[in-house]
Amino acid sequence: MSKHNAIIEELVTANRILAHEGIVDSFGHVSARHPNRKDRYLLSRARAPERIEADDIMEFTLEGEPVDARGRKPYLERFIHGALYEARPEITSVVHNHSPGTIPFGVTGKRLKPLLHMCASIGHDVPVWDSQKKFRDTDLLVSSMAMGRDLAKLVGKGRSALMRGHGAVVVGTSVRQAVWIAIYLELNAKLQMQAMAMGAVKFLTKGEIDAIIGRQKSFSYNRAWENWCIRAGRKMQELDEG
Amino acid sequence: MSKHNAIIEELVTANRILAHEGIVDSFGHVSARHPNRKDRYLLSRARAPERIEADDIMEFTLEGEPVDARGRKPYLERFIHGALYEARPEITSVVHNHSPGTIPFGVTGKRLKPLLHMCASIGHDVPVWDSQKKFRDTDLLVSSMAMGRDLAKLVGKGRSALMRGHGAVVVGTSVRQAVWIAIYLELNAKLQMQAMAMGAVKFLTKGEIDAIIGRQKSFSYNRAWENWCIRAGRKMQELDEG
Amino acid sequence: MSKHNAIIEELVTANRILAHEGIVDSFGHVSARHPNRKDRYLLSRARAPERIEADDIMEFTLEGEPVDARGRKPYLERFIHGALYEARPEITSVVHNHSPGTIPFGVTGKRLKPLLHMCASIGHDVPVWDSQKKFRDTDLLVSSMAMGRDLAKLVGKGRSALMRGHGAVVVGTSVRQAVWIAIYLELNAKLQMQAMAMGAVKFLTKGEIDAIIGRQKSFSYNRAWENWCIRAGRKMQELDEG
Amino acid sequence: MSKHNAIIEELVTANRILAHEGIVDSFGHVSARHPNRKDRYLLSRARAPERIEADDIMEFTLEGEPVDARGRKPYLERFIHGALYEARPEITSVVHNHSPGTIPFGVTGKRLKPLLHMCASIGHDVPVWDSQKKFRDTDLLVSSMAMGRDLAKLVGKGRSALMRGHGAVVVGTSVRQAVWIAIYLELNAKLQMQAMAMGAVKFLTKGEIDAIIGRQKSFSYNRAWENWCIRAGRKMQELDEG
Repeated sequence: MSKHNAIIEELVTANRILAHEGIVDSFGHVSARHPNRKDRYLLSRARAPERIEADDIMEFTLEGEPVDARGRKPYLERFIHGALYEARPEITSVVHNHSPGTIPFGVTGKRLKPLLHMCASIGHDVPVWDSQKKFRDTDLLVSSMAMGRDLAKLVGKGRSALMRGHGAVVVGTSVRQAVWIAIYLELNAKLQMQAMAMGAVKFLTKGEIDAIIGRQKSFSYNRAWENWCIRAGRKMQELDEG
Repeated sequence: MSKHNAIIEELVTANRILAHEGIVDSFGHVSARHPNRKDRYLLSRARAPERIEADDIMEFTLEGEPVDARGRKPYLERFIHGALYEARPEITSVVHNHSPGTIPFGVTGKRLKPLLHMCASIGHDVPVWDSQKKFRDTDLLVSSMAMGRDLAKLVGKGRSALMRGHGAVVVGTSVRQAVWIAIYLELNAKLQMQAMAMGAVKFLTKGEIDAIIGRQKSFSYNRAWENWCIRAGRKMQELDEG
Repeated sequence: MSKHNAIIEELVTANRILAHEGIVDSFGHVSARHPNRKDRYLLSRARAPERIEADDIMEFTLEGEPVDARGRKPYLERFIHGALYEARPEITSVVHNHSPGTIPFGVTGKRLKPLLHMCASIGHDVPVWDSQKKFRDTDLLVSSMAMGRDLAKLVGKGRSALMRGHGAVVVGTSVRQAVWIAIYLELNAKLQMQAMAMGAVKFLTKGEIDAIIGRQKSFSYNRAWENWCIRAGRKMQELDEG
Repeated sequence: MSKHNAIIEELVTANRILAHEGIVDSFGHVSARHPNRKDRYLLSRARAPERIEADDIMEFTLEGEPVDARGRKPYLERFIHGALYEARPEITSVVHNHSPGTIPFGVTGKRLKPLLHMCASIGHDVPVWDSQKKFRDTDLLVSSMAMGRDLAKLVGKGRSALMRGHGAVVVGTSVRQAVWIAIYLELNAKLQMQAMAMGAVKFLTKGEIDAIIGRQKSFSYNRAWENWCIRAGRKMQELDEG
């Protein structure tokens, strides 16, 4: 299979996994940078993630222009993806979701921080982007490159961020890593809410987070990916990870 | 298919979706205004929503009289529907449910308010109707037009209301919109309980709610509807939405 | 089908429903008084409720003696059932379970009270039985008629009671009613925990509880029963409820 | 079937049950001491528990050396198992997991204690191991015998322990007992969080815990095991428990 087709398959699987694991409902999306053109990305047409098939995957310029739409209607919020690929040359996948655990953190300003070793992947800090601050009363959707770039600026060099009253965004150097981070961001949020209700929380130390991130490789992601694939009714494909 | 049959299919699907998404258990109901007669509505006979089929859908006058019962026993609480169609000429669908997240708000008087963008659809304010106030010690069921009208008066021009010790009611300009609001009312309730336990909550602003409501069209509802249909084992029908 | 066989079918279904709805896990049981002999009851051999079949149902004297064991090992805690049938001639079904929502109430002494109309069926008051009080350090199991009678005394004329560190017990005038009460006891517990975390709770009034209990008839139970049967993969049987 | 093959079947089933009951996700593992050699144990290659088959089960020395790897990659954290078998000659099974309820206790230092009779199996006390204390900033994984022995020392003569920011470990005198303890440890954690939010908790007394542990035999474990097997799609095997 060509690299291009392999990434499309990977995206279909990623959408199904995110839906099956409760990270997206009828909304939310996951993209990949085009394997041959750094200035393009691949993202489904506007459709519920649980339903997405290979023919739904469209190609976009970083500005969000569809390359060959063929009547397919894109997600309004595709600018999240383009702005992050523009700002972060090293990343190759972006997830935007509204997973339930992340919402209470976004609207209370309580800081999400990793407390479980698998969740170190969310990064040292998970900042909160509030569209009110710069764009005032909007429908909260990231519907322009200006909004996308403002969000990307807040993400900075991080791995994840929350969006007040809206959801979260996650970046990765592979689709599997981005999906991993999105899933464990949600788990950390749920556990942190419970822990905070019990008392003072001992979060992972800076050194622990660095040590864990330094160790997490495709081997870890693949172990979970194999499992998530089967749960979501998808076949795991072998990737050339060289 | 005739408009009448299309609405019946739509109602069967709506019942199955509400059951599958955990908004109704063995109780609760969804109705539609008759497509050809403004003074009639369509609602299932008394049966668990998960089990409802096309032959269960009955026709009622706004006063709650069955037009052609053929031995089918109606819901005792059909007056909720008639009173809302009477008071609100523009609405064409009503959901009454007992979804678990809404109950704690109804019995504590804490105000439910939208905090997530998809939940703006519940409206600026979700008032609580307490049958005690006017009808004293009852079995809490809305079993007369007098009770239905009192509830409809509280709903006013709103999109949703809670009923103390009982559940919620939601109105829409289409079956799909009413189902959407009922589902996101439940999600907002769950998230708001969690957020309130963490600290002060930044709800959506008035301007944000207006902006979101102004944007939400059948396209949004259909994206979710397609997904909910398949989850509930139902085929999505194309509606003439002109 | 004979009344005896009908009750056995009803008990198998009740076990499957309680398992499917999360009221029992691998433990917990439901019994029925013998339809022809007031001094006997029917209860499964010691087996997980989700697995029980007609041949597992045994007959016992009120003292807990198996009438025809045929090698089947009875539940150690069958004395709960016998003692309640002895104390309450009008009841014909008993459920004993460890549903998760009821446990926190049993160990904190916070009083469970109905706050949702369908939950009025649990009765005005849900007392807590603590085996420590009379029997000191035991394995908490109700393993003798002395313990069963002490529990039955606490239940009094009520419909449900909690057991500290152990679970709950529920009585009904039919298997369907007892299952209903057990399911809505669990729901009330979950909702009450959430409501109490939010603020002062307005419970159902005494008059409301009486009005609801006065109205709940086999028609209500049957609507839910039909739904629960199908979910649990069981056929609903028509009962002669005359 | 040979004892060796029976234990391998038992381990496959244990992995599937732990996954199906939500005790492990894509990580976590369960081992058994070799039935014929006290200085060996059996544990899967590094794979998600839900996916494990008989050919995945490897044999290790207590030091964690694979006896016949045949290209299979072992779990990095196998040292947890070896160190516990070394320290506790009487145990024959170990579970290591990250079940969600246990994490908040590990990071807040609130003590988990049995409050429900089936949960007495977790033991009188559930200490918390913090790898920081002796090993400073690590990736939190138990990746050496030194770490494994430090953890085993904390477990002492107990039945379970938590690991800060990481998960839990459980030991048993049979695979079925270890699985039972892991499942009821998670249940106790969830219930204790809810109870603590409501008020002061009456835990099981020391005498009650001893009485329950004294009574729990393979008969209890088997009743649950039969049920868990079928839920997880596995056949229950008859064990020679003489």
